[in-house]
Amino acid sequence: MTLTEILEAFRSGTLSPEEAEAAITGRFFRQIGHSTVDTDRTRRTGAHEVIYGEYKTPAQIADLVATMHDTDQNVMVTRTTAAAHEAVVRIAPEARFHADARLITSVRHPVAVKTTRVAVVTAGTSDLPVAEEAALTAEFFGSPVTRINDVGVAGVHRLLARVEEIRAARVVVVVAGMEGALPSVVGGLVDKPVIAVPTSIGYGASFSGITALLGMLNSCASGVSVVNIDNGFGAGFLANMINGL
Amino acid sequence: MTLTEILEAFRSGTLSPEEAEAAITGRFFRQIGHSTVDTDRTRRTGAHEVIYGEYKTPAQIADLVATMHDTDQNVMVTRTTAAAHEAVVRIAPEARFHADARLITSVRHPVAVKTTRVAVVTAGTSDLPVAEEAALTAEFFGSPVTRINDVGVAGVHRLLARVEEIRAARVVVVVAGMEGALPSVVGGLVDKPVIAVPTSIGYGASFSGITALLGMLNSCASGVSVVNIDNGFGAGFLANMINGL
Amino acid sequence: MTLTEILEAFRSGTLSPEEAEAAITGRFFRQIGHSTVDTDRTRRTGAHEVIYGEYKTPAQIADLVATMHDTDQNVMVTRTTAAAHEAVVRIAPEARFHADARLITSVRHPVAVKTTRVAVVTAGTSDLPVAEEAALTAEFFGSPVTRINDVGVAGVHRLLARVEEIRAARVVVVVAGMEGALPSVVGGLVDKPVIAVPTSIGYGASFSGITALLGMLNSCASGVSVVNIDNGFGAGFLANMINGL
Amino acid sequence: MTLTEILEAFRSGTLSPEEAEAAITGRFFRQIGHSTVDTDRTRRTGAHEVIYGEYKTPAQIADLVATMHDTDQNVMVTRTTAAAHEAVVRIAPEARFHADARLITSVRHPVAVKTTRVAVVTAGTSDLPVAEEAALTAEFFGSPVTRINDVGVAGVHRLLARVEEIRAARVVVVVAGMEGALPSVVGGLVDKPVIAVPTSIGYGASFSGITALLGMLNSCASGVSVVNIDNGFGAGFLANMINGL
Amino acid sequence: MTLTEILEAFRSGTLSPEEAEAAITGRFFRQIGHSTVDTDRTRRTGAHEVIYGEYKTPAQIADLVATMHDTDQNVMVTRTTAAAHEAVVRIAPEARFHADARLITSVRHPVAVKTTRVAVVTAGTSDLPVAEEAALTAEFFGSPVTRINDVGVAGVHRLLARVEEIRAARVVVVVAGMEGALPSVVGGLVDKPVIAVPTSIGYGASFSGITALLGMLNSCASGVSVVNIDNGFGAGFLANMINGL
Amino acid sequence: MTLTEILEAFRSGTLSPEEAEAAITGRFFRQIGHSTVDTDRTRRTGAHEVIYGEYKTPAQIADLVATMHDTDQNVMVTRTTAAAHEAVVRIAPEARFHADARLITSVRHPVAVKTTRVAVVTAGTSDLPVAEEAALTAEFFGSPVTRINDVGVAGVHRLLARVEEIRAARVVVVVAGMEGALPSVVGGLVDKPVIAVPTSIGYGASFSGITALLGMLNSCASGVSVVNIDNGFGAGFLANMINGL
Amino acid sequence: MTLTEILEAFRSGTLSPEEAEAAITGRFFRQIGHSTVDTDRTRRTGAHEVIYGEYKTPAQIADLVATMHDTDQNVMVTRTTAAAHEAVVRIAPEARFHADARLITSVRHPVAVKTTRVAVVTAGTSDLPVAEEAALTAEFFGSPVTRINDVGVAGVHRLLARVEEIRAARVVVVVAGMEGALPSVVGGLVDKPVIAVPTSIGYGASFSGITALLGMLNSCASGVSVVNIDNGFGAGFLANMINGL
Amino acid sequence: MTLTEILEAFRSGTLSPEEAEAAITGRFFRQIGHSTVDTDRTRRTGAHEVIYGEYKTPAQIADLVATMHDTDQNVMVTRTTAAAHEAVVRIAPEARFHADARLITSVRHPVAVKTTRVAVVTAGTSDLPVAEEAALTAEFFGSPVTRINDVGVAGVHRLLARVEEIRAARVVVVVAGMEGALPSVVGGLVDKPVIAVPTSIGYGASFSGITALLGMLNSCASGVSVVNIDNGFGAGFLANMINGL
Repeated sequence: MTLTEILEAFRSGTLSPEEAEAAITGRFFRQIGHSTVDTDRTRRTGAHEVIYGEYKTPAQIADLVATMHDTDQNVMVTRTTAAAHEAVVRIAPEARFHADARLITSVRHPVAVKTTRVAVVTAGTSDLPVAEEAALTAEFFGSPVTRINDVGVAGVHRLLARVEEIRAARVVVVVAGMEGALPSVVGGLVDKPVIAVPTSIGYGASFSGITALLGMLNSCASGVSVVNIDNGFGAGFLANMINGL
Repeated sequence: MTLTEILEAFRSGTLSPEEAEAAITGRFFRQIGHSTVDTDRTRRTGAHEVIYGEYKTPAQIADLVATMHDTDQNVMVTRTTAAAHEAVVRIAPEARFHADARLITSVRHPVAVKTTRVAVVTAGTSDLPVAEEAALTAEFFGSPVTRINDVGVAGVHRLLARVEEIRAARVVVVVAGMEGALPSVVGGLVDKPVIAVPTSIGYGASFSGITALLGMLNSCASGVSVVNIDNGFGAGFLANMINGL
Repeated sequence: MTLTEILEAFRSGTLSPEEAEAAITGRFFRQIGHSTVDTDRTRRTGAHEVIYGEYKTPAQIADLVATMHDTDQNVMVTRTTAAAHEAVVRIAPEARFHADARLITSVRHPVAVKTTRVAVVTAGTSDLPVAEEAALTAEFFGSPVTRINDVGVAGVHRLLARVEEIRAARVVVVVAGMEGALPSVVGGLVDKPVIAVPTSIGYGASFSGITALLGMLNSCASGVSVVNIDNGFGAGFLANMINGL
Repeated sequence: MTLTEILEAFRSGTLSPEEAEAAITGRFFRQIGHSTVDTDRTRRTGAHEVIYGEYKTPAQIADLVATMHDTDQNVMVTRTTAAAHEAVVRIAPEARFHADARLITSVRHPVAVKTTRVAVVTAGTSDLPVAEEAALTAEFFGSPVTRINDVGVAGVHRLLARVEEIRAARVVVVVAGMEGALPSVVGGLVDKPVIAVPTSIGYGASFSGITALLGMLNSCASGVSVVNIDNGFGAGFLANMINGL
Repeated sequence: MTLTEILEAFRSGTLSPEEAEAAITGRFFRQIGHSTVDTDRTRRTGAHEVIYGEYKTPAQIADLVATMHDTDQNVMVTRTTAAAHEAVVRIAPEARFHADARLITSVRHPVAVKTTRVAVVTAGTSDLPVAEEAALTAEFFGSPVTRINDVGVAGVHRLLARVEEIRAARVVVVVAGMEGALPSVVGGLVDKPVIAVPTSIGYGASFSGITALLGMLNSCASGVSVVNIDNGFGAGFLANMINGL
Repeated sequence: MTLTEILEAFRSGTLSPEEAEAAITGRFFRQIGHSTVDTDRTRRTGAHEVIYGEYKTPAQIADLVATMHDTDQNVMVTRTTAAAHEAVVRIAPEARFHADARLITSVRHPVAVKTTRVAVVTAGTSDLPVAEEAALTAEFFGSPVTRINDVGVAGVHRLLARVEEIRAARVVVVVAGMEGALPSVVGGLVDKPVIAVPTSIGYGASFSGITALLGMLNSCASGVSVVNIDNGFGAGFLANMINGL
Repeated sequence: MTLTEILEAFRSGTLSPEEAEAAITGRFFRQIGHSTVDTDRTRRTGAHEVIYGEYKTPAQIADLVATMHDTDQNVMVTRTTAAAHEAVVRIAPEARFHADARLITSVRHPVAVKTTRVAVVTAGTSDLPVAEEAALTAEFFGSPVTRINDVGVAGVHRLLARVEEIRAARVVVVVAGMEGALPSVVGGLVDKPVIAVPTSIGYGASFSGITALLGMLNSCASGVSVVNIDNGFGAGFLANMINGL
Repeated sequence: MTLTEILEAFRSGTLSPEEAEAAITGRFFRQIGHSTVDTDRTRRTGAHEVIYGEYKTPAQIADLVATMHDTDQNVMVTRTTAAAHEAVVRIAPEARFHADARLITSVRHPVAVKTTRVAVVTAGTSDLPVAEEAALTAEFFGSPVTRINDVGVAGVHRLLARVEEIRAARVVVVVAGMEGALPSVVGGLVDKPVIAVPTSIGYGASFSGITALLGMLNSCASGVSVVNIDNGFGAGFLANMINGL
């Protein structure tokens, strides 16, 4: 029953007030002990919930995976571990673990692949785990991804050599630590939205990514916005959302 | 001459190396004393330069406006003053000053208006100047804007009542100071990219917008990215860029 | 002897100055080597001392538990460990360990249970340990607790569905990490005091709870006050105190 | 029409869907150009909206005062100026300006005065403006206030001499700048909730109130919670809310 | 040879310029591979060097102890470990390890004991290690110490009961974590210099002692100065220096 | 009547309880509207209260000066203005204004001058106002002061040339902005307590004195303690207190 | 007399000890009331003192200029004003005021001009005042300067077009605000030392230059070092020193 | 083929456009899976790339070492481990591991040794690992190094005794933790560029090197610039670059 059907059934008296309330509530979330799963998210935001794996036990994660597969959704778990994957794979044998990106993905319903691409660009090799989190997230939701690694600003010719590949994408994710200058340079070279992801790569006055974050927020290039430090997932999710507009 | 034409002319000997270099350079930037105007930006990024008005004298701004009109571009000046407008209007009588948003716009070539919309949403009345900067920027570059004001989270029903208007836009700019919670709530209600703009509105531990900025960067909703504190221009520019994809 | 009796005895000469001083002092604190137990706290503040377990050895904690049971008080130990519980249970077999909340409680004198309730609300599953610290503390001091979990602002309908339960309480504790926006939304929906507890849940620019703390301090809703990061005990104690007014 | 009446009228067909929607909306907020007045707040939170005066022009404030009086509410404006009062007094002659506390109050409907009291305690003379904001807010909403000034911890006997007055109140607001130690001492002496208000009084490493704020958040006394720096209004509002439970 | 004797010998020709230089240098420091021991410090500052144990290996520490005993000095090592003590005790059997305070002391030449006392006061039991570092340092340099523990401001009567003991000392060290309020209260009660030592005791917004440090720097009491977080050594050293004036 | 006399009079019945209370209270503080003057401070701390002039109106300051002169105390006002001096001089013609140090002093009872000296040393000319606040405070309370200016570490020979003058004092106040290194160098050259005063002199990353403050707190020299940024008064007061031991 | 001559005169008895001391001291510094002029600096560091103009009155500055001209030195005053220039020009008619750079220079002895150059590069027009301070300082001490303005990273082709000019210099000063990324890009393109100068240009999360400073400290390019925010003088001084090696 | 030869070959038709592009690209960088090695850096910056070892696995490091040796370059790896050295030594038997400095160096082509020297000066023994990183880096690139250890400002005579050795170098690296004052004192004593390296040595308010960093940025001495906390490599690289000018 759609919401309209429920309301009509309530007006016509087919449903009692209590039945209407239960029917309506059931459409929006489901409580499973420790969590309140948001089953309405796809309708509202165009994409279902993703499981934030940090702080959760393997058993809790496996519970949540089971619940989501029960409602016919593909599952992604972020910031998770091999131990959690072991628990998940028992109930979802198709689940894969991406160690670098710390992601579990379990895909039962192939997602339509878009025709336009997302570019994921890194400043240095050490930024790859966060970049992979972004790239795999975009792919999980249906965006093809072009990966361009280790083209930081200290050797700007490496970037210039690959500008055409970047310009060929519909949206660009730029991942950088240390001084976080790459998004500014990329933003000045392309006519596409740039999503900047600061990473915690660096030492001393990099302050675990704060310097990169601040640099990106103050970018002198237009068309750049920023997500949280090491938030590859958020960047990949947003990139796919923009790519799908 | 396009760049290809210049290169061909060089290969065929019509242009000497010096002439080729001058021709090429001229296509990319122009030096006017205190500034190096980036005349290649439209080709690279899809939008021409905008004049950052802060720290510049009215005379410098008028110079830059003249230079840009000379190259047939519309002009926008951000973070500027009535005094600068007085200087500009002498050489560009059509220039308008938007006092709240601290913008000068001077439009000589009407820009094509897109069919999809940008929504600009504020948490409180005090956020309006920054929101107007975002809205006027998006309009300047061709995006129709839906304005929704004063729907902060302390009275969340005000927001819920207007969700449909927000969902009708292709991209949403959310402007908030104090705790900066509104983008999270909006992000959980729509399936469109949300560009969050923290404002310096607040006192005490709002730290001139830092609290709002941090809140937005840690948004538990997906699809949210952030620009600098009070950076309405950046948000409006990016919103229009996404809207035009 | 009450303080008045001591003073009268001193005026009448029954007590020498030295005896009076000793009698008065004995009513106020007791020194046990490493600590100065505040035995007057119940008279002054309406509730006896609680043992702060961090930095203390199991042996020191067991000592303090013994001292407090000697003066007929129930005992609560916060921020403690299973090892400490093992030491305590030898001298206080009824002592229970609440692993999630890191609390030991040892109740020898049943406390009167109030008729009005405290609501403890969390934004996410990861906030549960701090929320349990708050809830168990309120219960230890005699307040019934309504627990409402995982209703963060990214799916605000989950919260709206349970507003009536929250409004039924006399005071509300709201526990949230990341951007810490939930207390503002709750504060705008209820007519009861809201005690906001920031948690250290999050990553990157959450700065171990600073972002949530700042967000809560800048809440645009009225009736909200804040305690230290992860201070579930403080919130539960204050909630019970307000509930008992 | 109450909400129930509207819904019944809709079910019975007296109201069309459009009319029902308008009626419902009208009960919740009212849009006046620059603002969205929350007319439902009293029902939800037990107290109507208060006008935050900072950043608003005298004309905007006068508009909002008029709107609120139209809906039969008393009006309070915080962080405002004598200039705003001049604008307000033309349309609300009974409006008073409290210069120290920077408040305008305009009371048309006498509010019931509670029988229990709020104590407002300051550490130093310089904290008085914030304390007055708290005290006047509590009085505006119906709480009698006991004022105790200049009893900071550097001369703790001044505080001890007045403990009984403080203990006679049902809730205590403690206002302090510099090191912000007073709430801890008071919290250790009373059995009532203590609302701590850090002020921006001090210099150097007081960092405009941050030091006092941090000190209060780390209070070793139980029963203490904290509001934003200089937020006398928030403390007074919450004190009255607790006092009215 | 004293410096004067060396200079006279140089003027009279008994010493060549090279010999004079060597003699002078030898009086001031001695180089032992990894370190430049300051052998002139007693003359200049009234007290010999103390070995800062952190970051040094047990072998390096034993080397330095041997060098200092060679020049007839007593030895103290701060921030050190049981492993270092094992290395030291082989060459200096009288060396003692104070585990709580993380100090090694090796006394070969009894130091004259002063007739006036230093008081070391703590806010809580958890502050004891830092307080012991202060107390043992003062004793090492010849000051008798009065220890007063666990008299924090949340139960201010515990402090008031012991004010006379504190006032009997010539200088007072006050050690406190969390909000760091105790030095202000003590400073308002005594007519002696108060050396405030912030400790890293606390959690959340105590920021490993920053809050206590800031509180102490902003003390509203006069006669209070502050040393680094957890710097018990510095406080004890200064207390003894003042005590010996 | 001394406190003992009051108590005896109470025990003997000469004073009723009410009279005893009034007599006791009167000895400790006096309330004059906006302030609670601490009249007991000399007994407790060896020095009477000093008026903190910031945030107070000239009229309030004049009131406080009058009250203090009424109780036969000399008066010092810190952080004050020429306007306040004009108000004070009407009731206390002998009051002097020290413009650089922003102090008013009004001495009616000559204070005994000590035989030992305080040295006040500055790193640069710009530190003089804070240094003068320290020097004048020490003189006000009876310590002769040796002033040594502009001997910062960038030309360390200037300092070395004057070490003997510094060593001749009993306690040393060192005032420095920017990197705040001077106290470490002085502390390594003298055998007297060094009170370090960071100043807000500097720009950029001096952060209004935070850098100097941090540098001083981390001094590698022993015998150094620190007061708040620009707190010349606190340093001078403490220096005199130590000088008088 | 050179120092050697003085010492020999002392050994031979021509100078008494007092005369020797006076002669030696006179060679090193000179005291003029408020300041201790370091007359030995040229010998030690290769360049005489420069007057830091901030916080000094025009009269004080004129005094210092006169003293320095008396010792035959050229004079530079930094962070100064037109008012100071008016005072200086009365005693040093040749003194020039550079308004943008806030410098006074008074050159009486032409300095030898080096054959190698310093390049001063800015990211944006707003960085010009700081860049001019650097350039004029380098010129004052004898380095020819190549100025390259407004070549920030958002239009990196502007920079690439001028790399050869930059590479022709012996040392490069790079001046940038906002995200401060330009030194990294320049550092990756040249084989010369890069001195990075962060400026306070920007808004919001640029934090008055902190973001640029942090970005530069974390530069991924080698050969980059950093000076204080807005410290054009320091960069120009160091550039000339390196250029003169 | 040089770039000119490639271009000529392209103009003459010997190379097709595709061949020219491949030839040009090959001269600038080489992609090896996870990294984009910058093979053009020596031409541009005068020194080849150095491998940043942190975050990289031993296998990745060995790969990169092999690639660099293939192109006939010497290899240095920073911030690395004994485990990485074990992997490297299998393919480059001459590779040495410097445990303190955490460096691997593998030299196949002896580098020309310069005739001028670099001085590396430390404030304390604990600063040695960072100083060794600087010294070994300078030596790796061909600069002889003078090492001067443990001459911090608390015993300034130790430094003064060695000033001539320092002045004999062409550029000075000064390494210090805690308050970071040594570069200011050295900068005031020498006429050479001073590169200041803050270290993370210290505790409490040293904030892992932030205090030392800030102190150095605010140095009152001229000729001082700063690199990141613990960045011995950067300082040694820059020192050698300046030394080679």
